[in-house]
Amino acid sequence: MDGSLAQQYLHNYLEKTDLLFEDYLSQKISDAQEISKIPAELLKRFKDTARKGKKIRGSLVVLGYVIGEGTDMDAIYDTSLFIELFHAGALVHDDIMDRDDQRRGLPTLHKQFAEIAETLHVSDHPNHFGESMAINIGSAAFYQSWEKLLNSTLPEDRILETGKLYTYYVLRVMSGQVLDITNTNLHNITERDILEVLRLKTGEYTGSFPLLAGYTLATQPQQSVSTAIKEYGLHLGWAFQIQDDILGTFGDEQKTGKPVGSDIREGKTTLLMLHLQNHGTTEQKQFQRNILGKETLSEDEISQMQTILKECGAYDAVIQKGWEHIEIGKTLIPTITDNKHLQDILESLLVFMMERAQ
Amino acid sequence: MDGSLAQQYLHNYLEKTDLLFEDYLSQKISDAQEISKIPAELLKRFKDTARKGKKIRGSLVVLGYVIGEGTDMDAIYDTSLFIELFHAGALVHDDIMDRDDQRRGLPTLHKQFAEIAETLHVSDHPNHFGESMAINIGSAAFYQSWEKLLNSTLPEDRILETGKLYTYYVLRVMSGQVLDITNTNLHNITERDILEVLRLKTGEYTGSFPLLAGYTLATQPQQSVSTAIKEYGLHLGWAFQIQDDILGTFGDEQKTGKPVGSDIREGKTTLLMLHLQNHGTTEQKQFQRNILGKETLSEDEISQMQTILKECGAYDAVIQKGWEHIEIGKTLIPTITDNKHLQDILESLLVFMMERAQ
Repeated sequence: MDGSLAQQYLHNYLEKTDLLFEDYLSQKISDAQEISKIPAELLKRFKDTARKGKKIRGSLVVLGYVIGEGTDMDAIYDTSLFIELFHAGALVHDDIMDRDDQRRGLPTLHKQFAEIAETLHVSDHPNHFGESMAINIGSAAFYQSWEKLLNSTLPEDRILETGKLYTYYVLRVMSGQVLDITNTNLHNITERDILEVLRLKTGEYTGSFPLLAGYTLATQPQQSVSTAIKEYGLHLGWAFQIQDDILGTFGDEQKTGKPVGSDIREGKTTLLMLHLQNHGTTEQKQFQRNILGKETLSEDEISQMQTILKECGAYDAVIQKGWEHIEIGKTLIPTITDNKHLQDILESLLVFMMERAQ
Repeated sequence: MDGSLAQQYLHNYLEKTDLLFEDYLSQKISDAQEISKIPAELLKRFKDTARKGKKIRGSLVVLGYVIGEGTDMDAIYDTSLFIELFHAGALVHDDIMDRDDQRRGLPTLHKQFAEIAETLHVSDHPNHFGESMAINIGSAAFYQSWEKLLNSTLPEDRILETGKLYTYYVLRVMSGQVLDITNTNLHNITERDILEVLRLKTGEYTGSFPLLAGYTLATQPQQSVSTAIKEYGLHLGWAFQIQDDILGTFGDEQKTGKPVGSDIREGKTTLLMLHLQNHGTTEQKQFQRNILGKETLSEDEISQMQTILKECGAYDAVIQKGWEHIEIGKTLIPTITDNKHLQDILESLLVFMMERAQ
């Protein structure tokens, strides 16, 4: 089993939802247009970035729904976008917090909004204006997400139960974000903190939650299935994160939409960095402390860091870890569903996560 | 009829909900504590500021519920806090956008969080850290708000319908906020824009929405009553905003928790400023353009601005406008309810809004 079935599944999801997503956001732009041209322009920029997402989480919502034997496919494709709207909003906020200049090959929204301020002369402080507007648009996306979920045509009790799950997991991801920002640059960091961030921000949020949300939208959850979905999702999330770390450190701009070595520049405490901290030589660790989060990093310093991460064994160990998660994830599949086709998709998804970066 | 009945009503709401609010936020702190001490500390600071609110909006939710002949008072007091959690989160974000240093007599949260960063040495950029954490905590409050609403023990269909109203009004308030920030310092400003901001950010959000939410939580809305509530709420909101403008320009620190003349310092385009712009002498308007949004304003400049606002007639005209809204608001009351006691509270509330600042 390779990742091709999963890839096809994700591709199908994008095809089914691209227009729905576009239409929804276009409607928001025209609502805003009635109020004033500036909010409409900001939402247009938001749409242009948001629709470029891979929408992995939305597709997992649909998968969870099918696992729960839901049959109203029109409704679930539309409803599943609630998670993509949240995610798009969270990325807008994250880009402010991480001081990122680029996202998906475009300037990040707070940068774009700062440019608007300069062009239209609407503020004496374009950067502050840009960030303020991005805070606003990110938060608006959260409420668009709720609008999408609550206006679903699925049964009311399913919507409400899913809404409760949604608040639970988002509050956890936000605590994870606090911890993540606090961890940056290895200040006061512990291994437990790093792993906790990964569990909250990726395992639960990217893996368990979307599958569970879809499952809950379909049916009153069965305890044993829920538990297996949650566990499977955690391992899927780990594999996803591991690839993300590899891409963030070794990936090229064309693939990631971000400059090479962006995680190193931002001082992110990834699994790679954790391994180096635990297993590197004194000299390598000294280099790590000097480099991580440094305002301006040369290409040379980045490539030196990449070499060290390979030499100290971090690269191999992290990839190895990813494959371990995949093996454990596989064992949970029979408890989630008896449907052979769905079992194949679940297995292919695990493998796909590890293939993304390679 | 004076504002004392309303004052008593608001006071009673605070008494009934203070512990509920405190308990809920304490629970959030202990949930976060299980994750890590920093998110818990940030939430503690959030709680300390949030509970100082006047909770006018929450009390209007309860009033709307009683108008709709709802009878489960325990449930509505608890559920009504959803709007206060949203409001507290929105204020955290607003304080970043407005670069405010103080809120309710305490440093604003992004300032407090920057101090934490310095004390605990968790960041090399304490101000950026403070703002990032405040973005996060504000957004978390939005999801706490949803948690409160969705976990209400009121009927599921009422919760869902109220949730839809909630997304509708918040998306409008967020567009209003974009417009408001864009309006600052009289850049490209039109009277229509200013009035639109007031309608979205205060009339609808502070007046119509909470009453309508409470009414919808109680019962399937009747069209005629809904319409009257919306209209009444708009006028109540206008009166509230007028007092807010007066307090923000003429109010003292002890009463408002903010430095004297804070609206002038921030370059807010209030109704007072709009009147000056439309009716002031050339000289007065020149002074206005020089002063509004200036980084450092002397006490002398502030008191000069106050004098001009009185001399050009803005102060009297705005107060007069407030009383007009109250008169119109009164005419809507009989359509909202036949209950004499509730009619008295609705009338007293209108008057109370104008009495706040005097």
